[in-house]
Amino acid sequence: MNHFVSTGDFTRADLTRLLESARSLRHRAPRTDLAGKSVGLVFFNPSLRTRVSMEIAVTSLGGHAVAMDVGANVWPMEWLEGLRMEGAAAEHVKDAANVLSKYCDAIAIRSFPDGKDWKEDRLDPVLRAFVKHAKVPVINMESALWHPLQALADILTVADEVKGDPAGHKITLTWCTHPKALPLAVPNSLALAATQFGMDLTIACPVEYELPEEVMSTLNANVKSGGGSVRVVHDQDAGVEGAEFVYAKSWGSLRTYGRASEGMRDRTRYRDWRVTEERMARTANGRFMHCLPIRRNVVADDAVIDSPTALVYTQAANRLVVQKAVLLKLLGNTK
Amino acid sequence: MNHFVSTGDFTRADLTRLLESARSLRHRAPRTDLAGKSVGLVFFNPSLRTRVSMEIAVTSLGGHAVAMDVGANVWPMEWLEGLRMEGAAAEHVKDAANVLSKYCDAIAIRSFPDGKDWKEDRLDPVLRAFVKHAKVPVINMESALWHPLQALADILTVADEVKGDPAGHKITLTWCTHPKALPLAVPNSLALAATQFGMDLTIACPVEYELPEEVMSTLNANVKSGGGSVRVVHDQDAGVEGAEFVYAKSWGSLRTYGRASEGMRDRTRYRDWRVTEERMARTANGRFMHCLPIRRNVVADDAVIDSPTALVYTQAANRLVVQKAVLLKLLGNTK
Amino acid sequence: MNHFVSTGDFTRADLTRLLESARSLRHRAPRTDLAGKSVGLVFFNPSLRTRVSMEIAVTSLGGHAVAMDVGANVWPMEWLEGLRMEGAAAEHVKDAANVLSKYCDAIAIRSFPDGKDWKEDRLDPVLRAFVKHAKVPVINMESALWHPLQALADILTVADEVKGDPAGHKITLTWCTHPKALPLAVPNSLALAATQFGMDLTIACPVEYELPEEVMSTLNANVKSGGGSVRVVHDQDAGVEGAEFVYAKSWGSLRTYGRASEGMRDRTRYRDWRVTEERMARTANGRFMHCLPIRRNVVADDAVIDSPTALVYTQAANRLVVQKAVLLKLLGNTK
Repeated sequence: MNHFVSTGDFTRADLTRLLESARSLRHRAPRTDLAGKSVGLVFFNPSLRTRVSMEIAVTSLGGHAVAMDVGANVWPMEWLEGLRMEGAAAEHVKDAANVLSKYCDAIAIRSFPDGKDWKEDRLDPVLRAFVKHAKVPVINMESALWHPLQALADILTVADEVKGDPAGHKITLTWCTHPKALPLAVPNSLALAATQFGMDLTIACPVEYELPEEVMSTLNANVKSGGGSVRVVHDQDAGVEGAEFVYAKSWGSLRTYGRASEGMRDRTRYRDWRVTEERMARTANGRFMHCLPIRRNVVADDAVIDSPTALVYTQAANRLVVQKAVLLKLLGNTK
Repeated sequence: MNHFVSTGDFTRADLTRLLESARSLRHRAPRTDLAGKSVGLVFFNPSLRTRVSMEIAVTSLGGHAVAMDVGANVWPMEWLEGLRMEGAAAEHVKDAANVLSKYCDAIAIRSFPDGKDWKEDRLDPVLRAFVKHAKVPVINMESALWHPLQALADILTVADEVKGDPAGHKITLTWCTHPKALPLAVPNSLALAATQFGMDLTIACPVEYELPEEVMSTLNANVKSGGGSVRVVHDQDAGVEGAEFVYAKSWGSLRTYGRASEGMRDRTRYRDWRVTEERMARTANGRFMHCLPIRRNVVADDAVIDSPTALVYTQAANRLVVQKAVLLKLLGNTK
Repeated sequence: MNHFVSTGDFTRADLTRLLESARSLRHRAPRTDLAGKSVGLVFFNPSLRTRVSMEIAVTSLGGHAVAMDVGANVWPMEWLEGLRMEGAAAEHVKDAANVLSKYCDAIAIRSFPDGKDWKEDRLDPVLRAFVKHAKVPVINMESALWHPLQALADILTVADEVKGDPAGHKITLTWCTHPKALPLAVPNSLALAATQFGMDLTIACPVEYELPEEVMSTLNANVKSGGGSVRVVHDQDAGVEGAEFVYAKSWGSLRTYGRASEGMRDRTRYRDWRVTEERMARTANGRFMHCLPIRRNVVADDAVIDSPTALVYTQAANRLVVQKAVLLKLLGNTK
């Protein structure tokens, strides 16, 4: 059995085959690969693209998706082990994972970080608890640390845009301001996948917003073994200079992790970290990317998001086919 | 591409063909017209009939429906353009409409009015934002202004009841009291459709509860061009006198729009605006209609709703077939 | 038309046939028995096993399930008749049941007790209102009084475990402590089904937690007519002595019904009513059972739940096949 937790669990060759499979699944003719199979979609957090594209991906392959909203229509859940469960959680992930394994052929999980203590969140505890206890493949629909389906869709978008190998192409992941301290899963996964594919990656962010050191180590190791480059720049203008792809995203600081008002004050100093037409003009006819949802005129200006250089809806469309490819890989041959 | 926003966008002949199609879809044999197609159902507000009958309508035609609850399992949304999005909304309707257009073959929207400012709500901003940005047909499942699927089901109910053309038959739309200031979509759409079909329409309501003047103008224009009649009466007893159909519905007053406690005080004066057996006795063996859900013994008495003259469950049943007809019209031939 | 409200409405022979049907439905090959049919799933309360296993049961038989969350994505509902509906409820169960009967071929209901007044809850008012007004079969997915699908799955688990007739086998239903006063549906239904199948049933509970007297009368009548035995023990150690099956469950006391803080104080005195390895050691190599979700280390220790003697995931798995059997019985031959 295989899980799909992070692109980091797969080689560039594996991922390239997934992208090829995704491209071949762009036609809409109904398939029956998953006939008689069910996929449980467990949402600890809201979602639009993920929910809709996962339901349609499963259905288009002939399977059946069952969505659950934890804490709303299904019981709130505990994930730490060994506790006396006297709090709000009525069910343990250990039990949910075992039970869903009896009903479903795969379990997909969306679980954002708790956002209080980085020491706990860095362990990706909810996703890891499902992986530990599930008896069927687990698919990560965005965890505390990783959003691999998004990253795969992003690389597919880049590869289609450069009409070939992403290796050696310049992408800048740029931090942007935001009213909230958002999770790090998207920047982690985008940076990881970019280096796995040998791209020249620039991370532009204020010094307090550098990615976790374990992620940075992995990026550097990827560059060493597979080519490409990675650099960190603390100036947004300099960061986007010459980029072929500008990937905007906000995320919370590890320095003020779990301290909301301090983080807010922090971000106020960086209110001008926003993708504008002026900044896009510094790029090499760069394309604008974002995973959505996006706070318009906060993270990036309408003029950028709505311009022909933006790839945001293509990225979203690619989620569907990438997910079909992942489902087919995990469940397609296991009749 | 066609949208389905209001019956007013279609001619009487168009609508008559839809009703004929709906009748032909009453058998329950599964169909495959929408095989491989998905319909996104975006709910900004609760629903029972609409949610269940839309899901079943799509499925019975071989398609796949994906329901979303905005602000619950999908992100809260902004619809005004050009704002700096620093509030509660994480996603803009512009982006949601574009993204859903990548996944779905049609997008159905339920979006009640905001209820604060009639000047804004009269523009039907959420539905219009979806229409503006969607790249696939948009279906109105009740907006601030219109509930065309309900109105079509209502006219089908009337036509079946009179065994022929609704033209010239007498229907009274009567306002009733209610603990809340409800939206105007149902009375607007019922009145519109009744005049589109040449019925003799009486609107009975307190003077403060007259329908919007732009709606009244349209009703009068319809009568002028297509026959039938429309009149407004400020006395419920007089209003139902001689009616063949009594359509009960509460709605909020434009005079106290957005001012809840004032509206409540207002309605207290009209607590006797309720459909009773005595009132039904004034009609010409009139049939009782309501779109449901209904506040029993507030809007109408149990004795009326539960009497054999009531058509309320037939109206609800007709929602299903009318929606199948609309889906077939919008999506059935576009393979 | 038949409803499925309680195992008590069926004979042992009926239920045995259902279990045989359930066993035959364990293979996962897709079926078409419910092609073109829809089942409405009305949830007044959260659920994981029930929601997921019902959706999959319906789908695996070729039908279509539509889930509704009352008070969230569908309107809050009133069930008492004759009221002036001026409160929170926008819709009456009478109308919901009639409308859903127009769309669906069966209606499944989950409705926990209100938990305020036992005199009202003992009448199982919400479920009974659906049964009264629905025009299609009603399936009880756990009401104030009964959880028959769980009980059937439990008996199937026992029967498979003893490889034959459950009659004469020893099962102890033991109350356990819990932070909340939980519903009585599971203990009622387990006890009822155990006596319907002629088991030797011990109910171990503090004196304040005895089951409702009408339930006890039925248990005694079952024993008289069908064999087996029932006894009540007010000591947990004595209760599990020699048991082949230990069924743990917490439930609220009828003595403090509706008085939360008093009930909490009450339960504090019984904090040691918990299934531990020591207690399991008193059994006759007893198997541990629970319907889930379970508060770990409150109701039972991890060491018990995670031991090879535990049948909890088998019980959950049996929910799916039992439900397929019930759906097939109610809807399979009615084309």
